[in-house]
Amino acid sequence: MPEIRKDPVFGRWVIIASERGLRPNEFRPGAGPDGKGYLCPFCPGNEDMTPPVIYSLPGERGSWRLRVVRNKYPALVSDAAAGNSRSGIYDRMDGMGFHEVVIETPEHGRLLEEMPAEAVADVLKTFVLRVKEIRKDPRIKYVMIFKNHGRNAGASLLHPHSQIISMPMAPLRVMQEIEGAAEYHMERGTCVFCDIVKEEKEFKGRVVAENADFLAVTPYASRFSFETWILPKVHESHFEEMPERLAGPLAEVVKIALSKLAVSLTDLSYNLIIHSMPVQEPSAGHYHWHIEIMPKLTHVAGFEWGTGFYINTVSPEDAAEILNSGKKYKV
Amino acid sequence: MPEIRKDPVFGRWVIIASERGLRPNEFRPGAGPDGKGYLCPFCPGNEDMTPPVIYSLPGERGSWRLRVVRNKYPALVSDAAAGNSRSGIYDRMDGMGFHEVVIETPEHGRLLEEMPAEAVADVLKTFVLRVKEIRKDPRIKYVMIFKNHGRNAGASLLHPHSQIISMPMAPLRVMQEIEGAAEYHMERGTCVFCDIVKEEKEFKGRVVAENADFLAVTPYASRFSFETWILPKVHESHFEEMPERLAGPLAEVVKIALSKLAVSLTDLSYNLIIHSMPVQEPSAGHYHWHIEIMPKLTHVAGFEWGTGFYINTVSPEDAAEILNSGKKYKV
Repeated sequence: MPEIRKDPVFGRWVIIASERGLRPNEFRPGAGPDGKGYLCPFCPGNEDMTPPVIYSLPGERGSWRLRVVRNKYPALVSDAAAGNSRSGIYDRMDGMGFHEVVIETPEHGRLLEEMPAEAVADVLKTFVLRVKEIRKDPRIKYVMIFKNHGRNAGASLLHPHSQIISMPMAPLRVMQEIEGAAEYHMERGTCVFCDIVKEEKEFKGRVVAENADFLAVTPYASRFSFETWILPKVHESHFEEMPERLAGPLAEVVKIALSKLAVSLTDLSYNLIIHSMPVQEPSAGHYHWHIEIMPKLTHVAGFEWGTGFYINTVSPEDAAEILNSGKKYKV
Repeated sequence: MPEIRKDPVFGRWVIIASERGLRPNEFRPGAGPDGKGYLCPFCPGNEDMTPPVIYSLPGERGSWRLRVVRNKYPALVSDAAAGNSRSGIYDRMDGMGFHEVVIETPEHGRLLEEMPAEAVADVLKTFVLRVKEIRKDPRIKYVMIFKNHGRNAGASLLHPHSQIISMPMAPLRVMQEIEGAAEYHMERGTCVFCDIVKEEKEFKGRVVAENADFLAVTPYASRFSFETWILPKVHESHFEEMPERLAGPLAEVVKIALSKLAVSLTDLSYNLIIHSMPVQEPSAGHYHWHIEIMPKLTHVAGFEWGTGFYINTVSPEDAAEILNSGKKYKV
C-alpha cells in the first residue's frame, strides 16, 4: 500500500510507493529500447497485459486509437482510506488516489509531435473528460496530468503515453505557484500569466509558437535550458474548463513546440506537465492554467533538480532563436 | 556576464550563465570518463590550467594536498554590480558573486569516502575557512557548498572536487526551509531538526551512521531513494560556526554514509549539499545546519525533479536496511 508522508520542515508531501519499483523499464540495460525482445504492454494485441480499460476511442475495424487504463504499478490506489495519522513528530496518510495511463496511439514508435493534429486533440480532449469524471470524487483535490518522454526524463516505456495522477492533496509546488500568482494579483490587480502573454507578445524574442488561442514561449526565468511554456491567451484557471473547440488549436501549438525541440535537441527527452487549479476550487481570477515542457539534456545539470537553486547555461532568448532557426544545439 | 532573473510567479531566482555552457565535460561521449585522452585541469602539474589559487594546503616535498581556485566557468562573477533592474514585468540583477572550486585531493581517481579521515576533515575545515572569509563581503547573503559526484549528478569532471557559490540572495528553497523550521519552532517551541535527531535515535530504523556528535539518517519523507541526511547532534544554525574539533567526527560520518551508499548503489552518483543559515543572519534557535546527500539512480525518476512532486519507490526504512546490510540494491 503506497503511503503519503509529510516532511516536517517543508510541509512537502512525498509518495512512498515501493510496489512501483517493480515496474518494467524498457530503458534498463539489456531490455532493448527499440522494443526488440520486449513485449510492449501498450501495443495492440497485448491489451490483457494492462488492467481493464477505463476509456477508449475506437479505431478502424474494431481496433482502438486511444486507451486509458489504470496504471499497473500505481503511485496511489483507490481503496486506501484518506485519513491522516501521526507517528512521533511525523504525519502520514494512506496513499489514496488514482493513477491512470493514457495510451496515446496504437503505434509503438510514433512520437506525439508526429501524430496528426486530430489525434493530439483527442489526447487533450481525453484529459479533459477524465478530469471531469475524476473530480466527482470529493476526496480528490488535485489531478496532475503529465507526460515523461525519453530515458533522461524518467520514462520507463517507449510507447507514447501520458499519466494522470489524482491525489487527496495539492503538491507543495502547485500551492506555491498559486500563492505567488495570488500575491501578484493582490499587488497589481492583474493575472501574472495574462501579463506574461502580453509582455511576450510585445517582446517577441522568446516566442516559439503562436496561433489565435495559444502562445508558446521560453520563459524569462527559465530553470532548464530550452524550457518551454504554452499559455492560453484567454484567462481560465482550470484546464478542464477549456472549451472543446480549443483542443485543436492547443494540439497545433503542442505539435509545433515539440517538433522544434526535437529538431534542435538530439535524442530529446522531456517532461510535459499541465499546471492547473485544484479541481474542487472555484474559478479564480489570479491563476491561469498552462503547460510546462522541461527538456532534460543529457549529462547537463542535475544538481539543480531538488535544491531549488537553478543555473541555466542557455538564455531563453538564445533558446528561442535556436528553436526558431531549426539549428541543432550542441551540448 | 551572468544574470540573475526572478520568476514573476514564484519569486524564484534563476542564474542564466551562458559562459558556463563552454566548460569541458569529461563525461561527454568520446571524452573518456577514465581521464584517458583528456588533460585534467585539477591534476598536479596542470595548475596553470586553473585560475590562480585562492587557498591551498601543502603536501609532501613542495606539492599540495588541497587547492581552492576560482571556477574557470563561473555561475556568478565578482566584478558585477548587485543592483536590481526591471524589464517590463520582470526583475533581474547582474550575476554578482563568487564561484570557487575545492580540489579535494591531488589524486585523480580517488573517491572522497576512500580518503583518510584527516584529509576529509581538511576539506570540511577548508569550507569553514572560506565561508568565514567570504562573509566579510556584505553583498554576499548566502554561501552554498556542494559536491556533484558522477555523471548522473551533473558532474562534469571526475577529479574529486566541491564547489562554493556565494550569492547576493538566498535561494528560494533555502528560505522556505528556514521559514518551515521557524513555523515549527513557533508552534512547538523546539527546533525541528533537534526533534528529528531525538526521534530518529529512538526509532533507530532509519539510522545509517552515528558517533558522539553526528547522526546520519534516511529521512522520514525522503524525496529520493537512498536520500541521506547528516545532522549535528548539538544545535547550531550556521555550518561555519562548527567548532574545529568537530571536523574529524563529521568526516567520519560522511565517510561511513558515502561508503555505504557506494557499496549498495552501482556506479554511485550523488549531490551533497550543506544546508545552512544565510551568512549575514545572526544565530537562530529554529534552524539547524545539516548535510543532504541525494543519490541519483540511473534512469529512475527524473520527473519529480523540478515539479516538487515526489514519488519514491524505496522507503527510507528499506533504504537504511539495505545500506546497513551491505547488500547491493538492484535498480
